Amino acid sequence: MVKKLIIDCDPGIDDSMAILAAFNSPKEVEVIGLTTIFGNVQTATATGNALVLRELAGRPQVPVAQGAATPLSGVAKARIADFVHGSDGFGNTNHPAAAGKAEEATAAQFIVDAVRAHPSEVTVLALGPLTNLALALQLDSTLAGNLAELVILGGAFFVNGNVNPAAEANIFGDPDAAEYVFQQPVRMRVVGLDVTHTCTFTGGQLAAMRSRGRFGSFLASITRFYLDYHRESYGMDAVYVHDPTALAAVLDPSLFTWQQGAVCVVTEGVARGLTVMDAGTKSWNGPNAWMTRPSVAVAVGVQAQALTSLILDRMTIS
Amino acid sequence: MVKKLIIDCDPGIDDSMAILAAFNSPKEVEVIGLTTIFGNVQTATATGNALVLRELAGRPQVPVAQGAATPLSGVAKARIADFVHGSDGFGNTNHPAAAGKAEEATAAQFIVDAVRAHPSEVTVLALGPLTNLALALQLDSTLAGNLAELVILGGAFFVNGNVNPAAEANIFGDPDAAEYVFQQPVRMRVVGLDVTHTCTFTGGQLAAMRSRGRFGSFLASITRFYLDYHRESYGMDAVYVHDPTALAAVLDPSLFTWQQGAVCVVTEGVARGLTVMDAGTKSWNGPNAWMTRPSVAVAVGVQAQALTSLILDRMTIS
Repeated sequence: MVKKLIIDCDPGIDDSMAILAAFNSPKEVEVIGLTTIFGNVQTATATGNALVLRELAGRPQVPVAQGAATPLSGVAKARIADFVHGSDGFGNTNHPAAAGKAEEATAAQFIVDAVRAHPSEVTVLALGPLTNLALALQLDSTLAGNLAELVILGGAFFVNGNVNPAAEANIFGDPDAAEYVFQQPVRMRVVGLDVTHTCTFTGGQLAAMRSRGRFGSFLASITRFYLDYHRESYGMDAVYVHDPTALAAVLDPSLFTWQQGAVCVVTEGVARGLTVMDAGTKSWNGPNAWMTRPSVAVAVGVQAQALTSLILDRMTIS
Repeated sequence: MVKKLIIDCDPGIDDSMAILAAFNSPKEVEVIGLTTIFGNVQTATATGNALVLRELAGRPQVPVAQGAATPLSGVAKARIADFVHGSDGFGNTNHPAAAGKAEEATAAQFIVDAVRAHPSEVTVLALGPLTNLALALQLDSTLAGNLAELVILGGAFFVNGNVNPAAEANIFGDPDAAEYVFQQPVRMRVVGLDVTHTCTFTGGQLAAMRSRGRFGSFLASITRFYLDYHRESYGMDAVYVHDPTALAAVLDPSLFTWQQGAVCVVTEGVARGLTVMDAGTKSWNGPNAWMTRPSVAVAVGVQAQALTSLILDRMTIS
């Protein structure tokens, strides 16, 4: 069955990979909307880029709904990863703006309305901080039960984070939103650095995309800045494909090893943004916060070669 | 060279294993003192048990110095793991008290004095919460530089804790003390659940100790309660040998794979007691708390079979 898919995103270079690959995966997903959030770029930039991506994909009728500009805590300015994605989110390629416009509805309202229209049929792939999802779940108490699935790109469970040793960037972007979402009775899959740090495209693979498919030239162009960042920060001639890895969890969850357990998010102190799951290694001797919240599926292993082949294929077929 | 060794301990069943094994390892270590702390039992009980253990070992002249009864934060009552070790710390075996008495000096003062007497020659093996170590480091600013090495049993770095999914019991016992210690310029090795949860003795091995060596009968007797706990909490017919594993890091550090990195301890919120190390996977894009503190050696792998053979041998030779 083709899944109706809303992609909550902050494009963003690896978001662009995932979004275009999703548009090229009609047997698995029907993209019914793009909602935007801050993270890799400011929310307004993400919205502009989502409009560009739907146009590039030849799907200008797919709604784009703009989301929150700041985290739930209401800090004046969101943390933006322009050093990873360029100030334009497309690797400073100065791509021209698209003609279209975003919806009137906010991202949270758009998600609520879409799930009301298609109960139990809509999957949300959340590629940025979870602010829009928290707001949507707060708007409509029936949303949690009527979402088919929420697939989250975020967290670092048994590995270091990428903002600092504790925190992964998406959860760090709004720890309070994440902590709220992980307490809701939503069917969730969580794809964190534990697996995304094993899924890479090499510099050679990125360059070779240029002449392949309708998106190849665009993707080869925007990923140069992203590759430079990985060379400097990780000392590797390859890029992590975080967002495409999370898309793969929508397209084919069997590529992953999943561990069920409750997740808590640290919302204060030095480890703010850290995700801790109960991996089920023992029976606890006293009550703890994990016991009272629902179990979610956390990716702890991945068939990286099969996954990157799948994504590369979807990014570069015509 | 034989290392002068102070064991800061809360015996405790696996403490007893480690302490007796240390007394049986004269080629590697000379036990020059036992200092006591709360954790597995209250501090006063730990002191009584340390006196029993030195007597059992035929070393009644080795000083025992009593340490703090509560964590640095001054909470009225320390968390005690009597459900793991029995209310007497010896698996409810009602062992008779020893004749000897503890020193007048506190544990912290004893450590300070020993290191002043033998600068750069004293290793401390810390098997409980780090309160005494924090107090000693605060008492004498030259201690950090004059300790040969501090080997810490504590933390859960890339695995779940054992108090709750975030926290390991020793660090949880006094997170503030641990956070203080990890900021001091001390040469440290840290042995956490990442490795201690791969080092076990089976129920059969424990029972077979009974007739082996001068400690076998005592150890076989006290470990029955500990085995029952592991059967119930972990569903396994074996026990973790946490404290002996840390002793092995003193006896033969080459049994472990060590990763260098700074460690922060979460001191508040749901993950209080969680240890997070910078595993050196990337260059950070902004300042963080890990950057400003010294690097320590964290055990991330262990030759479990060789280690358990070594410890079993030291526990059961005559």
